[in-house]
Amino acid sequence: MTVQHPSDLNDVLAAKKAAFQIPEGVIYLDGNSLGVLPAHVPDRIAEVVRHEWGTSLIRAWNTHSWIDLPGRTGDRIGRLIGAPAGTVVACDSTSVNVFKVLSAALSLRPDRKVILSDNGNFPTDLYVASGLKELLGRGHELKVVAPEEVEDAIDDQVAVMMLTQVDYRTGRVHNMAELTRKAHEAGALAIWDLAHSAGAIEVDLAGAKADFAVGCGYKYLNGGPGAPAFLYVAEAHQDKVTSPLTGWMGHEAPFAFDLDYRPVHGVNRMTVGTPAILALSSLHAALDVFEDVDMADIRRKSISLSELFISEVEAKCPQLTLASPRDPNQRGSQVSFRFEEGYAAMQALIARGVIGDFRAPDVMRFGFTPLYLSHQDIVDAVAILADILETESWNRPEFKTRAKVT
Amino acid sequence: MTVQHPSDLNDVLAAKKAAFQIPEGVIYLDGNSLGVLPAHVPDRIAEVVRHEWGTSLIRAWNTHSWIDLPGRTGDRIGRLIGAPAGTVVACDSTSVNVFKVLSAALSLRPDRKVILSDNGNFPTDLYVASGLKELLGRGHELKVVAPEEVEDAIDDQVAVMMLTQVDYRTGRVHNMAELTRKAHEAGALAIWDLAHSAGAIEVDLAGAKADFAVGCGYKYLNGGPGAPAFLYVAEAHQDKVTSPLTGWMGHEAPFAFDLDYRPVHGVNRMTVGTPAILALSSLHAALDVFEDVDMADIRRKSISLSELFISEVEAKCPQLTLASPRDPNQRGSQVSFRFEEGYAAMQALIARGVIGDFRAPDVMRFGFTPLYLSHQDIVDAVAILADILETESWNRPEFKTRAKVT
Repeated sequence: MTVQHPSDLNDVLAAKKAAFQIPEGVIYLDGNSLGVLPAHVPDRIAEVVRHEWGTSLIRAWNTHSWIDLPGRTGDRIGRLIGAPAGTVVACDSTSVNVFKVLSAALSLRPDRKVILSDNGNFPTDLYVASGLKELLGRGHELKVVAPEEVEDAIDDQVAVMMLTQVDYRTGRVHNMAELTRKAHEAGALAIWDLAHSAGAIEVDLAGAKADFAVGCGYKYLNGGPGAPAFLYVAEAHQDKVTSPLTGWMGHEAPFAFDLDYRPVHGVNRMTVGTPAILALSSLHAALDVFEDVDMADIRRKSISLSELFISEVEAKCPQLTLASPRDPNQRGSQVSFRFEEGYAAMQALIARGVIGDFRAPDVMRFGFTPLYLSHQDIVDAVAILADILETESWNRPEFKTRAKVT
Repeated sequence: MTVQHPSDLNDVLAAKKAAFQIPEGVIYLDGNSLGVLPAHVPDRIAEVVRHEWGTSLIRAWNTHSWIDLPGRTGDRIGRLIGAPAGTVVACDSTSVNVFKVLSAALSLRPDRKVILSDNGNFPTDLYVASGLKELLGRGHELKVVAPEEVEDAIDDQVAVMMLTQVDYRTGRVHNMAELTRKAHEAGALAIWDLAHSAGAIEVDLAGAKADFAVGCGYKYLNGGPGAPAFLYVAEAHQDKVTSPLTGWMGHEAPFAFDLDYRPVHGVNRMTVGTPAILALSSLHAALDVFEDVDMADIRRKSISLSELFISEVEAKCPQLTLASPRDPNQRGSQVSFRFEEGYAAMQALIARGVIGDFRAPDVMRFGFTPLYLSHQDIVDAVAILADILETESWNRPEFKTRAKVT
């Protein structure tokens, strides 16, 4: 007899689980790192490979509208993050897109020198900002403060405030609307990295008047490993900025093969090279699952799952200390706990089929993906974690060997 | 009875055709634009999607060595272009890679201001150079001369000579070793774009002492539409340059999540974001076909095919004028003809199953891919072309409507 948690009885998203291929014996709490394979995606990719590439060959750029795939995929993502059609494109990696939008934003504030960010930002965003600053050599300063100090650090020196909305380690959520408003009041622009937001929480880019955004295709959007990322440019800025990466796909007429660059109208000027059709097709297809879903339902269930997780862990695993905000409204769709032996404990947990991940120095990180997790999964996962901690079964050499990727 | 051209009888590459999925009724002379699907690739991609992503999920970064895929794929490409192991990585698009290596090269020649290129370069390379120059704002000049004037334009003002080895329109080949030697004599660095070289002609990057190179994964390497590109950094430069795109994959310890960027030793510092695993897996698998192939055999057959094509066209299609060098040693693996009604004629030809492409204003372009073309294919293709031209069957409205992608 299958046990069912009472909260699963009224779950409006319960049927969605069948839309994914969850491996037997696995409870997957790592969709914030790499989303699960949507069940229909393999057939769709096979169709693109065998039929579109294999049979249509070069003609598919027109006959299968490959050329529009970055924009078509972007528009589907846009619906999930409050971005109107024509403001989002799917392309390149998040890091490359950070470079593009940060460069574009700085060009709109030529007299200001400060890039404001926080130390809860995902490191690659800070690396890219630092690299761009060096490259430009114009005396920009990358000012990195604690997340709770960002608001006070916004002043009239700041050209661009660049933040990741949901902290990758703790899940702490910045107030996008409020911080963007503050930035604008000070004459600064706001860039939001939605890597841990898109498909996870309700986002309203247009409502918050965000200037630029970037985000990831392979986490909550389930686009596949290393899926194309996306970027957003508010309509008002689109024709005022150029990409620093002036590739042919951002040209007004790429197939005229002119020697001079003239950026195309709109957000497509932020695209660079030939679109990655196989990867984009996977991401585009993965977004099918979201088509009939309301982000408010996802958010509601996400909070319910994470609240249950916290109460179960605190009741059954006293060795662990909550590292995420306790208020669910301050938290994205993930929960982290600190534990000195967190690395080994996570390896032991993974060996038992409960997959989360670890972030140095001592963070055990668990992601909640309402599309394919039930409340019963949460209870079962914590029972296994409690057993591991109780029996100290993490205390084995094989769980302590650090892997290349954590 | 199948007709067979006598030159096909001794073709050491004849058996390779079976390694590809060629659509029924198609003679594909556009492998220089998008390579044909290798027959084993759909199964390999399905395996990566269903098993590696679907079942191993996040664990696959370690268990399936996803994290090393850019370097493993780069090394396979390296063998085809005379680049030692550890000097090539597969990542991003060609345009993005041009930006990276040009920025890196300029940083090695801080006192010089000229980027030398030619007007036969693929436009995106020029766009990217022009965009980088604007971004840097340090008075760099992008000097674009005719291809035959490059040699004389190399002087002690030139920081970087950046050329595409094989002209995308005419197939004209630059002498890489000679021009690189001249550039070095003048104190300049040499960047080579191998978009139409890799897998098409013999290339010896190390022998020519090239400083940097980039190239395309979806043309002669058959990696799939929008496949990841590659880049090469000569060993001597690797630890002296940093990428302008300082993403976490180029970090010494990406999973330490440090706030400061420290580039990793070697060519991997030129990688940026999370590797595109689905796309890279397709490219990596496509390179299987090359494993037991000698580039000298490919080059020999390529010349034989293109010489046959020229003599057949000139004998049977007097309306067309050769736009490529007549000397096969001056030509890559493609041949172009000029014809005023070239656009419509190419559409008519494609409608008859012979697929080439068109480049404005009047170039009919044909690529020769010795792995999956026979001499008989060439004879058959030209017979169809002659018929189209003779009967003026290109002279129909439906062949004159310009498609979005040409």
